Amino acid sequence: MSTVIRSKYGRLLSDFEVGKTYEHPWEVTVGDGMVAVFQASFLDAMPVFASRAFAQRYGFRDRPLHPLLCLNLALSFSVHDVSEQAIAHLAYLDVRFPGPGYAGDTVTARSTVLEAKPASTGDKGVVHVRTVLTNEHDTVLCAFERKALIRAGKLDARPADPWSGGKPTPDLASLPRLPPPLRLDAEPAGPPPRFARFADDFETGQVYLHEIGRTIGESEHMQLTDLFRNSHPLHFDEIYCKDNSFAKQRVVYGGLVFGFAATLASRDVAGNALWDLGYDQGAHPNGVVGGDTIYAASKVLEVKDHGLHGQVAFRLVGVKNVTSAAAYEQHGDALFDEELKKDKDKKIKEKVFEITRTMYVRKRSAR
Amino acid sequence: MSTVIRSKYGRLLSDFEVGKTYEHPWEVTVGDGMVAVFQASFLDAMPVFASRAFAQRYGFRDRPLHPLLCLNLALSFSVHDVSEQAIAHLAYLDVRFPGPGYAGDTVTARSTVLEAKPASTGDKGVVHVRTVLTNEHDTVLCAFERKALIRAGKLDARPADPWSGGKPTPDLASLPRLPPPLRLDAEPAGPPPRFARFADDFETGQVYLHEIGRTIGESEHMQLTDLFRNSHPLHFDEIYCKDNSFAKQRVVYGGLVFGFAATLASRDVAGNALWDLGYDQGAHPNGVVGGDTIYAASKVLEVKDHGLHGQVAFRLVGVKNVTSAAAYEQHGDALFDEELKKDKDKKIKEKVFEITRTMYVRKRSAR
Amino acid sequence: MSTVIRSKYGRLLSDFEVGKTYEHPWEVTVGDGMVAVFQASFLDAMPVFASRAFAQRYGFRDRPLHPLLCLNLALSFSVHDVSEQAIAHLAYLDVRFPGPGYAGDTVTARSTVLEAKPASTGDKGVVHVRTVLTNEHDTVLCAFERKALIRAGKLDARPADPWSGGKPTPDLASLPRLPPPLRLDAEPAGPPPRFARFADDFETGQVYLHEIGRTIGESEHMQLTDLFRNSHPLHFDEIYCKDNSFAKQRVVYGGLVFGFAATLASRDVAGNALWDLGYDQGAHPNGVVGGDTIYAASKVLEVKDHGLHGQVAFRLVGVKNVTSAAAYEQHGDALFDEELKKDKDKKIKEKVFEITRTMYVRKRSAR
Repeated sequence: MSTVIRSKYGRLLSDFEVGKTYEHPWEVTVGDGMVAVFQASFLDAMPVFASRAFAQRYGFRDRPLHPLLCLNLALSFSVHDVSEQAIAHLAYLDVRFPGPGYAGDTVTARSTVLEAKPASTGDKGVVHVRTVLTNEHDTVLCAFERKALIRAGKLDARPADPWSGGKPTPDLASLPRLPPPLRLDAEPAGPPPRFARFADDFETGQVYLHEIGRTIGESEHMQLTDLFRNSHPLHFDEIYCKDNSFAKQRVVYGGLVFGFAATLASRDVAGNALWDLGYDQGAHPNGVVGGDTIYAASKVLEVKDHGLHGQVAFRLVGVKNVTSAAAYEQHGDALFDEELKKDKDKKIKEKVFEITRTMYVRKRSAR
Repeated sequence: MSTVIRSKYGRLLSDFEVGKTYEHPWEVTVGDGMVAVFQASFLDAMPVFASRAFAQRYGFRDRPLHPLLCLNLALSFSVHDVSEQAIAHLAYLDVRFPGPGYAGDTVTARSTVLEAKPASTGDKGVVHVRTVLTNEHDTVLCAFERKALIRAGKLDARPADPWSGGKPTPDLASLPRLPPPLRLDAEPAGPPPRFARFADDFETGQVYLHEIGRTIGESEHMQLTDLFRNSHPLHFDEIYCKDNSFAKQRVVYGGLVFGFAATLASRDVAGNALWDLGYDQGAHPNGVVGGDTIYAASKVLEVKDHGLHGQVAFRLVGVKNVTSAAAYEQHGDALFDEELKKDKDKKIKEKVFEITRTMYVRKRSAR
Repeated sequence: MSTVIRSKYGRLLSDFEVGKTYEHPWEVTVGDGMVAVFQASFLDAMPVFASRAFAQRYGFRDRPLHPLLCLNLALSFSVHDVSEQAIAHLAYLDVRFPGPGYAGDTVTARSTVLEAKPASTGDKGVVHVRTVLTNEHDTVLCAFERKALIRAGKLDARPADPWSGGKPTPDLASLPRLPPPLRLDAEPAGPPPRFARFADDFETGQVYLHEIGRTIGESEHMQLTDLFRNSHPLHFDEIYCKDNSFAKQRVVYGGLVFGFAATLASRDVAGNALWDLGYDQGAHPNGVVGGDTIYAASKVLEVKDHGLHGQVAFRLVGVKNVTSAAAYEQHGDALFDEELKKDKDKKIKEKVFEITRTMYVRKRSAR
């Protein structure tokens, strides 16, 4: 037989060098087509990301790329180097969207290893990385930290990287949460807002049970996974999944579950939002498969002024195959508590996503 | 427990104010990507909407947006205000495409309530609206009337609109059926036509049984529904459908069934069509679900001159899970008769769409 | 009853005139959206087709259209005239990509009949055509020969072509394999390569068993088929397939199986490839249906210098529902032998694709 080569990607626990930065190999021009495929699964109400005319009134040169499109590209690009061998994605931390990206931008991403800590069991550990997505002008479009659960060992089948010495990633605290055009001195002239709810309408403690769910199609979740360059076979290789998936079948990539939850909430809470100031303390307590239906609920954590407008923080939750109203009826406000901190018998098995989301939202009174 | 908010959208019968115009909240730049996702489900033969080079020969600055893309955007944008609580879509009336839209246009839509008439049963009624889709230059890309069957009552859970007093919609009769570039004094020079059939080839009474069908995928119909911003959960929320769908499952959005029927006919009858002069008297007699296969048939109602070229009116019909040849063999010309006017035992249960379509079609002899 | 017209397309064996060139009717502007829908199914690692910034460093004005996108358009456009009545696609021969196409190009295709030979059984025959895809500037984006198995007879239901006398297609040997920007005198300055494997790393006889598979979604394969304008109902009409498909169901269009196999190999072998110099001796030994999972394997046939960089020829194979490692364990190097030349009992039933692929690949040492 011939010389046989079976390459694998991602890393095992001992492959991670703390302090090192990995340049992820994907280099992709984000075209208008990617925007459309994104919009075709995520019915989002935020006008600044949908309408060039709206965005230009606020000083953008075009409609900026949707924050969750940028987040998904950053996360997916990192899979090749960080999580293609991961057991699970554990946490999203301090996600920021400092600069506007536009269709036509060419993006790349890199990740710095902040920590790689073996678990006491010895067979796995937690890797903590910081990932940034930049365009060809070095504008940071998205930056965050995340944690993943990784098997112990070294991945011998991984080919050596073609170069090392990636530029370090910036501290997240140094990155602004609002892009330059939105540091507003005055609300621009223009037609009145089109959706119903404003910063003035939110009050701490309110619970929004978003009425409508979204069933996830088999093809669409694989298409988005590929389009974002997420190379984990758990999401699109049924044969791999028979032996290697906790669900014994393809599992929807978590960044998409995030996208479904956030956009299902959007007509109720984001129709007058102008930007995502950040996401934090996010996790996927349970998995989702094609055919599952996602519902979302939001609880207002804080409302305050932010320049001309308001800053509203929500705890956003996604559940599967049960309406958010039914889930809330059963679990009450515990629906919004972090699953990881709960006793085993208090965990909510239909809960598939949770995160703290902070938005920059127009005030009705600012007009 | 906290203050709980469960918003709903659409309107019930008593929410409609005759004479009032609702500005629909969606404001969307139609990019080249949306054109591609549209083309990926609808194999259309009309060259003017596919080829920039072809369109430019006829005086357009780019390939114009496909009429059925515009119709679907207008109809879908109106769901949030008009039909998200509807029991059924009843009729398409006098659909026109006065102006060319192009990729890059930012579109919005508004609807004027023409009538809201309770049925004698008291539990529902018929709402008749006129909807227009315009771009940011106030060019009307599509306008039509439609009727929907709506439950009686008021929708208390609908948040108050942020503003009222939408600009009235124009009378349909005031809107031209042909866009300015196509008011031709001479057929432009250029390569010969590429498809087979011309205005000269059609004769009143001919029946075209289009050979090929199209099976509808689960993901693709949800993607198109979201991309068009159609927010009715009947089309993408399987949990909602278990209790609320007449089919007990997700139902394909009617505008897509329209699209499949029209484009399945296109290689036979529209390869030399230059524009859709209008659609009228359209309905969806039966529902369609993912996995169904649609076939189409066309009957020529009228052929006449229109400027340099011809105007051909067809009755277009869509059937499901049976070829149009088999349906015609069984039902004969009754296949093309309006279902609503038939006695119950004469209705054709596999018929899923019917409409009168009028096209502007090149003459072979004009060259 | 009325005059009934049932048109069919494609041709039967006696309809092919040797020496004649058919202008296929599709005329399509390839937008950025089509690029995205293509990328959403095919996770390809070749940077020149993904990144405008990368492509511009190599002298292209934008990222060029992916070779397999061009091949799929050429092949699909030809179905209307060549293979819509075909029993099977038999062979891809001498596929070349002479010029770069870009998003915004308007493409058409034409095919010259090289041979139409009845089989001894009398009921069918082999048609051999040469097909070229050109843009509006007459740049040839893709050219190849192919063979198809066609039923005997004449297709009376085919409407007469609107014109004949298509411009002859050029001899393939006259067409360059490398587009002008890549006839390099020097490797351009720029950041270091991002993927691992270079021309210097390949050795004749190496076997690459690509680890990861791809399950094919029902919607996505129909969407790509329509987007490419492939009009064969075998791929999207379930009712037709019940009686007319060898699989009794929809069969994935071969050009897509080709795409899945080539892109599944790409992270291992094409991350530093700059162009496809050609494909040859390709076939689809077995069919694929929605839900099948494709795996790929590559064997290095030849490595040599090509200007500044290297030219690497692979035998590329696709298998279904079994990993390439398992297939290779069972069949050894016979996995890479041509199926057509094997005795019946030696044929590999899970093999769905095979082709010889030659790539222009950066040398590590060229930097």
